[in-house]
Amino acid sequence: MAELLLIGIAQLATPRAGPQRGAAMREITVLKGAALLIRDGRIAWVGPERDAPAAARVRDLGGRAVTPALVDPHTHAVWAGDRLADFEARAAGVGYETLLARGGGIRSTVRATAEARVEALVTLARPRLRALRGSGAATVEVKSGYGLTPEAELRSLRAIRALRAAFELRPTLLVHVPPTEGREAYLQGVCEVLIPEVAREGLAEAVDVFCEREAFSVEESRALLTAAQRAGLKVKLHADQFHALGGVELACELGALSVDHLEASGPAQIAALAASETVATLLPGVTLHLGLPAAPGRELIDAGACVAVGTDLNPGSSPLFSAQLALALAVRLNRLTPAEALTACTVNAAHALGLADRGALAPGQRADLLVLEGPAWLELPYTLGRNPVREVYTALTP
Amino acid sequence: MAELLLIGIAQLATPRAGPQRGAAMREITVLKGAALLIRDGRIAWVGPERDAPAAARVRDLGGRAVTPALVDPHTHAVWAGDRLADFEARAAGVGYETLLARGGGIRSTVRATAEARVEALVTLARPRLRALRGSGAATVEVKSGYGLTPEAELRSLRAIRALRAAFELRPTLLVHVPPTEGREAYLQGVCEVLIPEVAREGLAEAVDVFCEREAFSVEESRALLTAAQRAGLKVKLHADQFHALGGVELACELGALSVDHLEASGPAQIAALAASETVATLLPGVTLHLGLPAAPGRELIDAGACVAVGTDLNPGSSPLFSAQLALALAVRLNRLTPAEALTACTVNAAHALGLADRGALAPGQRADLLVLEGPAWLELPYTLGRNPVREVYTALTP
Ligand SMILES: [Zn+2]
Ligand SMILES: [Zn+2]
Repeated sequence: MAELLLIGIAQLATPRAGPQRGAAMREITVLKGAALLIRDGRIAWVGPERDAPAAARVRDLGGRAVTPALVDPHTHAVWAGDRLADFEARAAGVGYETLLARGGGIRSTVRATAEARVEALVTLARPRLRALRGSGAATVEVKSGYGLTPEAELRSLRAIRALRAAFELRPTLLVHVPPTEGREAYLQGVCEVLIPEVAREGLAEAVDVFCEREAFSVEESRALLTAAQRAGLKVKLHADQFHALGGVELACELGALSVDHLEASGPAQIAALAASETVATLLPGVTLHLGLPAAPGRELIDAGACVAVGTDLNPGSSPLFSAQLALALAVRLNRLTPAEALTACTVNAAHALGLADRGALAPGQRADLLVLEGPAWLELPYTLGRNPVREVYTALTP
Repeated sequence: MAELLLIGIAQLATPRAGPQRGAAMREITVLKGAALLIRDGRIAWVGPERDAPAAARVRDLGGRAVTPALVDPHTHAVWAGDRLADFEARAAGVGYETLLARGGGIRSTVRATAEARVEALVTLARPRLRALRGSGAATVEVKSGYGLTPEAELRSLRAIRALRAAFELRPTLLVHVPPTEGREAYLQGVCEVLIPEVAREGLAEAVDVFCEREAFSVEESRALLTAAQRAGLKVKLHADQFHALGGVELACELGALSVDHLEASGPAQIAALAASETVATLLPGVTLHLGLPAAPGRELIDAGACVAVGTDLNPGSSPLFSAQLALALAVRLNRLTPAEALTACTVNAAHALGLADRGALAPGQRADLLVLEGPAWLELPYTLGRNPVREVYTALTP
């Protein structure tokens, strides 16, 4: 029986276990002079150090803060090629349409990713996932979506499977970019062949769709997500990034795990999310990188929704390699309080992946936790441009 | 004669030496397959690797990008105490007036800093300066300004002097916070005693004033800065952060090294800067942290000004510990192009400190340079939340 007692915790900050919505997102526990007992990779006890039980092994953290490890519920970490030329052109005022016409934009990433072998995709993704983990994310969702053809999508998902040997990943099949021709046959192939095959091989836990004017319509999204549900997979949706087309309402109706983006969501979408079990996932990296409006995080919480935050790590719209910075940006750009941001990046992000066993420092939860550099947990949301995370301790840490 | 030839430089990107203004800020050189010869801490030769001269020592960088090391021209890196409670309260909607009434705000930093000994200030500042250097800043300006009393200001400047043993710092005396009583006598003491003493002891190279409604007026700023010039010190100014009171015009009139902030600057101030030798220094960390408007970086460059970028590292309005992230934020928030941002953070930032010997990879310049993780220099402005800097090589590196 592996047993470890952590003492010398200056501050232990944690939300309650399970998803938190509305004002409950702010009700975190902050314990000074705490201790925490880990047994067989699970948290067995948390409390004041003076009441700590005896343990086989004891480790003194010497007065640092401890929080749950973060969960990044939304990344596109598997891609080939780069978008540096797009970045430069965009900053010089070139429009996205022109970029596409020049062979840039998302289709350049699709081209490079579709050409890459599984091993190349694994090699490219590894340092990105290492950066995310170093920034505090012990669990990371990774989507396919740059493959386009079924074969290339399967290669991306196989790359994610291979990376699971080293990282705690949750794989999602993302239907991201419509084909330039044969749209109907493509969608039929995805629904009738690709999704069932992905389910059969266990290559993804969920299916996601990019619901937007230039991508898939609400009705196409409905067909894809219901095919996913028929195959026994969970569903989620990219919706309301630029236009509120009805994707949020669809996601809530279908009982999606989460609906992500929401920059264009208004009162009707906020009300729908507040009345549903679907998590509202904010992606502040996109707001910063593209200079677009921020999703209404404050309004969603005030209405009573369950809000999560993710990096959206991807080369085109969010080159954000830090879950800690995503958390810190949610305070600045989406107007979350620090406590709400902690909840959004831990238990609520876990819930957005269908996981109830992590995100809180409470008995029975996985022992996934962060040891910060300093004694105050607030350094986690406060710090910009320096990683306040000293150590990411996970149930998998030997 | 210490000689080192760097080869295997996939891309070498550099502005021209000396300050660059307007469109010239974009005219950087990007050389593929480059080499660079360092002799006695200075750059002796730069060019295509095939033309490289012979050298006593050769180091192969293996296909990475190289840029000049960054210069951070504006920090308040010496402080005691923290502003975490303010950060939490502000995010919960508490106004700055209320924070001040509760004993928070800048006066809490002044209290803690004034109470700290020189050794304590040094210990607190060291990891901050280490973070800035790791992010690419080989040269860092550091201001006093939280001491308030002359004795405490001198202690802060002595802490900066002590830190110069380990870091390449340029010290500035900042007249930051008006005393709660005896304002006239205080200003007289600063002009007639503190500034001459600082000059005599060589404790600062420049004097800076916070010119703002709640701080010092334009006329008070004028008196302070002319006293500084009489003492042989250079001058700079915090101006137009919240209100365009005339500080920009004063700084240009006095031939200040730089005028910093500029969030409230309009066409008249932009025109004044474009017509002057004074550097316009942008501080995008404040924009991100406080959610205030961004300074008009694009408009300043288009008008022909010489623009620099700094972190403004300080606990209250910019907890930004990365010169690289300041550069990356200037692209997103102040609408600089990547090339302009590189120029702003290198030669122009050096010029804002009166330094002409660094910031460009050109013969005669100090050998302060960055080796990036990857082969593309654009990773420097592009990357968010991960440090793309592998190595900061400086003239001081043994
Ligand atoms: Zn996405
Ligand atoms: Zn400042």
